[in-house]
Amino acid sequence: MTLIDGKKTAAEIKQEIAAQVKEMESRGERAPHLAAILVGHDGGSETYVANKVKACGECGFRSSLIRFEDDVTEERLLEEIKRLNEDDAVDGFIVQLPLPKHIDEQRIIRAIDPEKDVDGFHPVNVGNMSIGLPGFVSATPAGIMELLRRYGVETKGKHAVVLGRSNIVGKPMATLLMQKSNPGNCTVTVCHSATPNIKEICREADIIVAALGVPGFVTEDMVKPGATVIDVGTTRVPDATRKSGWRLRGDVDFENVAPKCAFITPVPGGVGPMTICSLMMNTLKAKKK
Amino acid sequence: MTLIDGKKTAAEIKQEIAAQVKEMESRGERAPHLAAILVGHDGGSETYVANKVKACGECGFRSSLIRFEDDVTEERLLEEIKRLNEDDAVDGFIVQLPLPKHIDEQRIIRAIDPEKDVDGFHPVNVGNMSIGLPGFVSATPAGIMELLRRYGVETKGKHAVVLGRSNIVGKPMATLLMQKSNPGNCTVTVCHSATPNIKEICREADIIVAALGVPGFVTEDMVKPGATVIDVGTTRVPDATRKSGWRLRGDVDFENVAPKCAFITPVPGGVGPMTICSLMMNTLKAKKK
Repeated sequence: MTLIDGKKTAAEIKQEIAAQVKEMESRGERAPHLAAILVGHDGGSETYVANKVKACGECGFRSSLIRFEDDVTEERLLEEIKRLNEDDAVDGFIVQLPLPKHIDEQRIIRAIDPEKDVDGFHPVNVGNMSIGLPGFVSATPAGIMELLRRYGVETKGKHAVVLGRSNIVGKPMATLLMQKSNPGNCTVTVCHSATPNIKEICREADIIVAALGVPGFVTEDMVKPGATVIDVGTTRVPDATRKSGWRLRGDVDFENVAPKCAFITPVPGGVGPMTICSLMMNTLKAKKK
Repeated sequence: MTLIDGKKTAAEIKQEIAAQVKEMESRGERAPHLAAILVGHDGGSETYVANKVKACGECGFRSSLIRFEDDVTEERLLEEIKRLNEDDAVDGFIVQLPLPKHIDEQRIIRAIDPEKDVDGFHPVNVGNMSIGLPGFVSATPAGIMELLRRYGVETKGKHAVVLGRSNIVGKPMATLLMQKSNPGNCTVTVCHSATPNIKEICREADIIVAALGVPGFVTEDMVKPGATVIDVGTTRVPDATRKSGWRLRGDVDFENVAPKCAFITPVPGGVGPMTICSLMMNTLKAKKK
């Protein structure tokens, strides 16, 4: 069994990026600049944005954090997005989701210039990815593809089963895995809440990507010996032994599943660090344009 | 076994559209107007475009056919697209594919105003469909969804197997079938040229959508009793008994597969007429915007 060490891989990639940034600067160019809009004070969102800002530092990027309170209007947010779209000193930016209920998330996403949409959430980028055209690919699926590539996981002709059909993980993951590319060229099955026989389908999978958000959902009896298991789940579960009172748990019963696998990602330290890393790669790409 | 009669359904829908157009006109509005750009004189393309023009007539639409010779430049085509984008008297238009090799198809598609892209090929429309936002859905998958709806084929929790991963059929078909909607909510598997065990996978399918372009590919031994089989294939095969010397053949060995099915579409007269019908529905929608 090979543990896919997302933390280590992400660290390597960030070093590679930092080297490129140094080279850029030695040519007299400015470093890439990522901006993030954060609305409110949700604990999870605060952590995610803080980690993104930190990653920018590690890559030698400039970062800007733009904060709004929970009661910010949609119009005010759209105004800020327009400003960022027009600001030549900003290469890419993200709006941390979720947003408060009175704001139309899709309207906000559509307002972002697709050329600066480093999260890859704008319909143009979603469409380009589906068609196989250049653009920004959503960070989590892009990070998973990078892990498969760097660990040399064989994908061609393999049966990949994606658990979950969300817009930011399940659907783009399925699209990327089926594309005529390497990694890719998988037969892909997408399962979700309306699938009656997920267990049986998983048992036939060479690759499982679990993105349901149900802690410990994928159990040992669902995994074929020699399978590759990618765990996208990150649910906070109570843990009295931690100072915080909680720990992250994935969608996979890691302890019992891992011994059967050819490759498996842990939680934390698997997909999570790669997601932020993809955002950095997208920002570098945006700067190069 | 129920034969899904696409020709009959398409005729009904065109009548429904024609009634709406009459009502529009009685309110003093002009009828919808579809334009088509045709490059060269390819037999297949000529037939498709002629059928589209004919369907416009049946729906009470205005239609315009704009012809260019094979040696037209990309710039000239882009100019024409710009003109159509700006022409308020044109609600939607299509560029009949394939285009000659010296023209970048994707560049042409991207030049079309997404609001007039009634073929649903522009990345924005592809992305909107994937996310589940309003927009134009590619005509063939939209037509198949309409057939499933009108024939009351149960899809929720069913296993749909899509054969083929093209941008205009396989991929959007998979996306539509997995959406949380009715029809939809299927577990979806996409198979393609790199899938080693298509036969075995098809045998587990409740619904098969065959879009490989390989005549007679789906044989009786690949179909579970009671399955629904949708045949997107339309290959011209030699037929000495016809005046033309050829006939259309689907991806399904209809004669032997049909008796096992709950529902099946014939070729011709199944998906084909519905594809043109979806284009009419999209044009009506474009006019209403």
